[in-house]
Amino acid sequence: MLEKEKKSLKMLAHKYESVRSQSLKLCEPLEVEDYSLQAMENVSPPKWHLAHTTWFFETFLLVPFLKDYEVFSRPFEVLFNSYYNGVGDQYPRSWRGLLSRPTLATVIEYRTHVDKHIETLLNGKTTSDICFRIALGINHEQQHQELLLTDLKYNFGHNPLYPAYCESVSVGETSENVFTFSEFGGGIYEIGSDIEDEFCFDNERPRHEVLVKDYSLANRLVTNAEFLEFIDDGGYERPELWLSDGWNTLFSLIKKEPRLPLYWFYEDGCLKEYTLSGAQEILPNIPVCHVNAYEADAFARWKNCRLPTEVEWEIAAGNQSKKGNFVEGGIYHPVPAMTSDIDGLFGNLWEWTSSSYSPYPGYKAFDGQLGEYNSKFMANQLVLRGGSCVTPQDHIRLTYRNFFYPIDRWQFSGIRLASDN
Amino acid sequence: MLEKEKKSLKMLAHKYESVRSQSLKLCEPLEVEDYSLQAMENVSPPKWHLAHTTWFFETFLLVPFLKDYEVFSRPFEVLFNSYYNGVGDQYPRSWRGLLSRPTLATVIEYRTHVDKHIETLLNGKTTSDICFRIALGINHEQQHQELLLTDLKYNFGHNPLYPAYCESVSVGETSENVFTFSEFGGGIYEIGSDIEDEFCFDNERPRHEVLVKDYSLANRLVTNAEFLEFIDDGGYERPELWLSDGWNTLFSLIKKEPRLPLYWFYEDGCLKEYTLSGAQEILPNIPVCHVNAYEADAFARWKNCRLPTEVEWEIAAGNQSKKGNFVEGGIYHPVPAMTSDIDGLFGNLWEWTSSSYSPYPGYKAFDGQLGEYNSKFMANQLVLRGGSCVTPQDHIRLTYRNFFYPIDRWQFSGIRLASDN
Amino acid sequence: MLEKEKKSLKMLAHKYESVRSQSLKLCEPLEVEDYSLQAMENVSPPKWHLAHTTWFFETFLLVPFLKDYEVFSRPFEVLFNSYYNGVGDQYPRSWRGLLSRPTLATVIEYRTHVDKHIETLLNGKTTSDICFRIALGINHEQQHQELLLTDLKYNFGHNPLYPAYCESVSVGETSENVFTFSEFGGGIYEIGSDIEDEFCFDNERPRHEVLVKDYSLANRLVTNAEFLEFIDDGGYERPELWLSDGWNTLFSLIKKEPRLPLYWFYEDGCLKEYTLSGAQEILPNIPVCHVNAYEADAFARWKNCRLPTEVEWEIAAGNQSKKGNFVEGGIYHPVPAMTSDIDGLFGNLWEWTSSSYSPYPGYKAFDGQLGEYNSKFMANQLVLRGGSCVTPQDHIRLTYRNFFYPIDRWQFSGIRLASDN
Amino acid sequence: MLEKEKKSLKMLAHKYESVRSQSLKLCEPLEVEDYSLQAMENVSPPKWHLAHTTWFFETFLLVPFLKDYEVFSRPFEVLFNSYYNGVGDQYPRSWRGLLSRPTLATVIEYRTHVDKHIETLLNGKTTSDICFRIALGINHEQQHQELLLTDLKYNFGHNPLYPAYCESVSVGETSENVFTFSEFGGGIYEIGSDIEDEFCFDNERPRHEVLVKDYSLANRLVTNAEFLEFIDDGGYERPELWLSDGWNTLFSLIKKEPRLPLYWFYEDGCLKEYTLSGAQEILPNIPVCHVNAYEADAFARWKNCRLPTEVEWEIAAGNQSKKGNFVEGGIYHPVPAMTSDIDGLFGNLWEWTSSSYSPYPGYKAFDGQLGEYNSKFMANQLVLRGGSCVTPQDHIRLTYRNFFYPIDRWQFSGIRLASDN
Repeated sequence: MLEKEKKSLKMLAHKYESVRSQSLKLCEPLEVEDYSLQAMENVSPPKWHLAHTTWFFETFLLVPFLKDYEVFSRPFEVLFNSYYNGVGDQYPRSWRGLLSRPTLATVIEYRTHVDKHIETLLNGKTTSDICFRIALGINHEQQHQELLLTDLKYNFGHNPLYPAYCESVSVGETSENVFTFSEFGGGIYEIGSDIEDEFCFDNERPRHEVLVKDYSLANRLVTNAEFLEFIDDGGYERPELWLSDGWNTLFSLIKKEPRLPLYWFYEDGCLKEYTLSGAQEILPNIPVCHVNAYEADAFARWKNCRLPTEVEWEIAAGNQSKKGNFVEGGIYHPVPAMTSDIDGLFGNLWEWTSSSYSPYPGYKAFDGQLGEYNSKFMANQLVLRGGSCVTPQDHIRLTYRNFFYPIDRWQFSGIRLASDN
Repeated sequence: MLEKEKKSLKMLAHKYESVRSQSLKLCEPLEVEDYSLQAMENVSPPKWHLAHTTWFFETFLLVPFLKDYEVFSRPFEVLFNSYYNGVGDQYPRSWRGLLSRPTLATVIEYRTHVDKHIETLLNGKTTSDICFRIALGINHEQQHQELLLTDLKYNFGHNPLYPAYCESVSVGETSENVFTFSEFGGGIYEIGSDIEDEFCFDNERPRHEVLVKDYSLANRLVTNAEFLEFIDDGGYERPELWLSDGWNTLFSLIKKEPRLPLYWFYEDGCLKEYTLSGAQEILPNIPVCHVNAYEADAFARWKNCRLPTEVEWEIAAGNQSKKGNFVEGGIYHPVPAMTSDIDGLFGNLWEWTSSSYSPYPGYKAFDGQLGEYNSKFMANQLVLRGGSCVTPQDHIRLTYRNFFYPIDRWQFSGIRLASDN
Repeated sequence: MLEKEKKSLKMLAHKYESVRSQSLKLCEPLEVEDYSLQAMENVSPPKWHLAHTTWFFETFLLVPFLKDYEVFSRPFEVLFNSYYNGVGDQYPRSWRGLLSRPTLATVIEYRTHVDKHIETLLNGKTTSDICFRIALGINHEQQHQELLLTDLKYNFGHNPLYPAYCESVSVGETSENVFTFSEFGGGIYEIGSDIEDEFCFDNERPRHEVLVKDYSLANRLVTNAEFLEFIDDGGYERPELWLSDGWNTLFSLIKKEPRLPLYWFYEDGCLKEYTLSGAQEILPNIPVCHVNAYEADAFARWKNCRLPTEVEWEIAAGNQSKKGNFVEGGIYHPVPAMTSDIDGLFGNLWEWTSSSYSPYPGYKAFDGQLGEYNSKFMANQLVLRGGSCVTPQDHIRLTYRNFFYPIDRWQFSGIRLASDN
Repeated sequence: MLEKEKKSLKMLAHKYESVRSQSLKLCEPLEVEDYSLQAMENVSPPKWHLAHTTWFFETFLLVPFLKDYEVFSRPFEVLFNSYYNGVGDQYPRSWRGLLSRPTLATVIEYRTHVDKHIETLLNGKTTSDICFRIALGINHEQQHQELLLTDLKYNFGHNPLYPAYCESVSVGETSENVFTFSEFGGGIYEIGSDIEDEFCFDNERPRHEVLVKDYSLANRLVTNAEFLEFIDDGGYERPELWLSDGWNTLFSLIKKEPRLPLYWFYEDGCLKEYTLSGAQEILPNIPVCHVNAYEADAFARWKNCRLPTEVEWEIAAGNQSKKGNFVEGGIYHPVPAMTSDIDGLFGNLWEWTSSSYSPYPGYKAFDGQLGEYNSKFMANQLVLRGGSCVTPQDHIRLTYRNFFYPIDRWQFSGIRLASDN
């Protein structure tokens, strides 16, 4: 093995170790009971996240590549398979909160068991396929770290005791940040990834040319204060602002009056929101969070703007540094914009785009069972870009495509406006 | 205070203490994670049962009767209120499994806090109303002890690991027990309760005359072997055997083919059932358990019999001793009949009757907020009689009326046949 | 054949003819389009009623008893079978409104065809079984005449044009009728039917003794004015007045605020109700109509009364004449009480009882396929007594037991109060 | 007025008349009962289509532009408003089948009334806005002509009598048509419309440049024979072929085994399909019809192909003549391909594309209330192209964008395969 490869392998092993231990670190504030919460089918309990990410390494690395490996537990093959039909049956998704057994202790044991064998695997003869799958597993685990916090917030959000996951961090109240647009010229650009040696998901490939018209992009995310203006102006009661599917689902999605973003509520006449630090006052300059794509679109229409396409976003973000409010900051909540230049494209909040989650021209899904990772979801979903305050910083990329249904609100999702010039 | 009253009060305090500690004892085999399970709206997590029974004493005794008492926690007033609209709001029933907080430790603390104050209350000046409410609270807690186990079985039943709550107890395989009927003469009888000094629920009162025709009652419960004959004879596929509501719900209730009682399943071609001791072979002479009233009725029709009325049951049981297979036996599963005489009316399994759960003539509900305890459920439900293998023995009475919807299968419910002479 | 039998047969043939033609007469005010309406699964289109009653005679008389009879149409055997599993498959109930074909003309042809053959059958050698089945078919058709109007009202009730089936009949506004109770002494009574020669349904047999306590029964039905008092007193918002199942379904059943009986609505601030004569003002002295058993029970509780049992009703009605406001009167709407004596037990409105629809002791269902007529519905339903303004007068009997689910509101159902003495 | 304008206005008036009378002509084979059918929320009864298209002219032309015009009926403003919130309230969509009144006769009267006044309007002083709206109304009515037949098929499809709307037309059984691909070179193309004087919908504008890679497009639609191969190869049981949303909805959408395209069924072991000429044998060379986008996508994946984008379709169709199997042919069913060249892009069947229904860059919705016509549906839907055998020929255009949810199967929709070169 070349020195370079050795070094790269060492780095991979190191990354594996640090990401795996980060998952447990994120769970430190939890009580044992918190590990089993599942308040809707879309969210999974922390314990399940811990086990499923482990199952991923076991299933796609140890089973096929480590000689004589015996699975930790036969039933786990079904219990912790998320959606890989090619691998086998799956325990019903909506029942994940019913798995009091295996206990947390057993799941930790499972993690240790698999980590030990992954170490063995990496100390043996590795191939590029193995290294790719390790990298994929690491990125997969990072995705679940974000989901673990996002889901936890949703679960805790059903508890009137408003449990706090973390201390509240004062972000300092900033003066109102001016709202401006930056203009971008049209033409042929390239988006997507073609870097050989760097990990990315199949859905980011291939790098390809796109044709864009002139457009403008807001310098910062829409704030709570701005969204409150929309509400006060009857935004939630004016069908002309809404996509038909958004309007029709509004009544089933938000039953309580007045309609508000997820986690917002009135207490003693005072508007508050549930955060991972517990119930908090709504601060005006903080970006509005936990709106779905219909709310984002209605707000944009109200402003005579529109949502950006993912192409427009990627072009604009190409000039930006990847700094921002990520999970490492330990805030777990959006922070106000700090500059009047276009900024904050990375971190803080996932930004809804108007782009449907579709394959890039020439797209090839990952091979074999791993082909189910991304490609089968390319219907009915929209792309979100840039990462959020619960995303690991080194997980995000310029070309990264997150995707959710337009109706989904439990992600840390916000609004950046765009318009034609 | 008279000596008799003192003694009676002392007995009550002792009963309080023993029933309260029994609730915790029943939880000893549980893992912390098990305390939060809720697999359907009808079942509650063990932790919730522990807290709600405590809330009952706090709400109906400490708050109104103990001077200067301060509630342990304001939010608990809502979180652990089951269905008392007269008391106030209730946390949504279907969300009880989402209460990771308060933690188990806090709930135990809550129990200790309330127990201490109940002790204070009982050491002070008591009234007959206080004593009655203590007795009601004790009986209420016993009902929840049974539900705690019944619900736990349902929750564990969703876990393919088949968690065992207890060791399996070999009940000895008995020889097939002859199936006979005992005849009872018609006439005017009295049922219900009018005993002043003994606790009973409002729904058991008043004692009143009933007019009955001659009838026969089976000497024992229907067995697994007999129910298997029904299945093998196409019982689940023959609409002529079924009440219309039963037939119409069959397809939504039991989706898997072949249709079977709750907890029965095929594994490697072998018919098994999930029990609180884990997955077990189906033993032929054990009474069939976890059937709903429609299944019980269809079986009876197939046998050219019918279900008994609650009047017929109570008349027959009037001559029987209250011995049987109760929770104290630690078996948590039905056992075979031991004699060919009519027997086993108490314990083992709740016996479905054809009687709708209605008020007795002259019925008066408990006063005030406690009026909601029983009376508002007198619609659409059927009476079950006799207690089960998870009922506390000293909780059951000849006149005891349990009630569930005919569609319910998760109770320890079985079939005793009756017929006209 | 004896002269008496001949006469009886002639009367039967005559009755057949008159009831069959009455069905068509009831349809005279309809437009062709009205014949296919089905606004919920529980109601059937007029055309379907016309065809199904014909299918009944064809299936249970012509096919088994008329030599060489060929069915009018093979597909009709499925299309117009309501719920007789013993006969064969059934077209889905909720799709009955989708049968634009066969056209009305064809259904009329079907009726003529079957009538002609029934005439042939009755002119041949008859048996007591044939005569019984003819009588059953006649009574069956009368039931569907009532349903035809009841269902039509429900269907028309979805049309904001408020179509009128008939002219409005002024019933004369009466002075407020005093509300009193009549007392009845307890003891052993007989209810049910044992008359050999007179038709009745199996569920009315056998005549049998019942034991009753002293009770009182209201002299008349509850009026609109009284029910409005209940509403104004917050009756629909006070859970303590409601059975739990009633309270829980209230919100899904009646979505609009304020909650009101079925067919009531506000128009320009004025309270109205839809009737078969179109939208009308709510008259205070008219009995309140289209309430379900939960509303009836809540009203009774609010009045410190209760609903009568069917036994209490039958005992009281035993002394009453069968005169009243029936379909022949052509009013199709309840009328005010005319006397301060106990009255109006027959006709006007079906009266909810608290009695679950259960078999009488010693009950035997009709033989064979006809056993499905009544017996399979003996679960979850309540008995209503006395007939209504859309019941044919000669269809009703003292012992007649109608039955619907407590949640049902589309029948012409009202409230008569009872109480313990 | 210029001669040219006069002529153009005359043509418009003529077009109005011919399209309006065509709607009635399409209804000639119907029985009165057929006019009210509505088998699911998505379909509307013929009578409703006839009234709604009339409402469109009344609301958007007569009310704003014809002096002193009085609406035919106030309630019709609500009854026949489809989804224009800007205009006012709407009668619930799922209740359209309950409108037995107004009768067909009244709706015809309504049409005559509006036609007469439109004539008056067109004989007066017209503006370009009026002319545009007349053209829009005409195109709108043509869309509903197609829906009238499409919906009728769905409604009739629930009737086991398989009503025939028309005579069966023998299309001649062709020899198997070879399946080839045509290659198209990549580059910058223009799609969409910018023709000033010709009517098109707002969603087709503006004409704009697109960037395309090389691709191939199938010369003809997928046939029944080919789709049967897919079924026989387990296509409906292999999750790896399906988009996740398609796979998850498959079980709720198609309950019967074996899974088949809409309208296909087995009768006496023989595979048939319901057509507007009644039940017919499945012919192998006829294009497969009534598949949804998930079925189309799964089939494409099975063939190692993909669905085309709408851009790819429009580029390819740019060279084709607009001849084909349209509604005027009176076949109302797809016909086999007649040539081995690329053909049949127009007519026969709507062709699913993989393109989400999104606004073109620079898109502007119609002004005012008419803005709701298209733009609010730009979420969750896919574009279909080319028209079908029930589309009026002069309604279709190269740039025409039809749109439905990927789950919809009741449209005349088929599959044309594409692939990367």
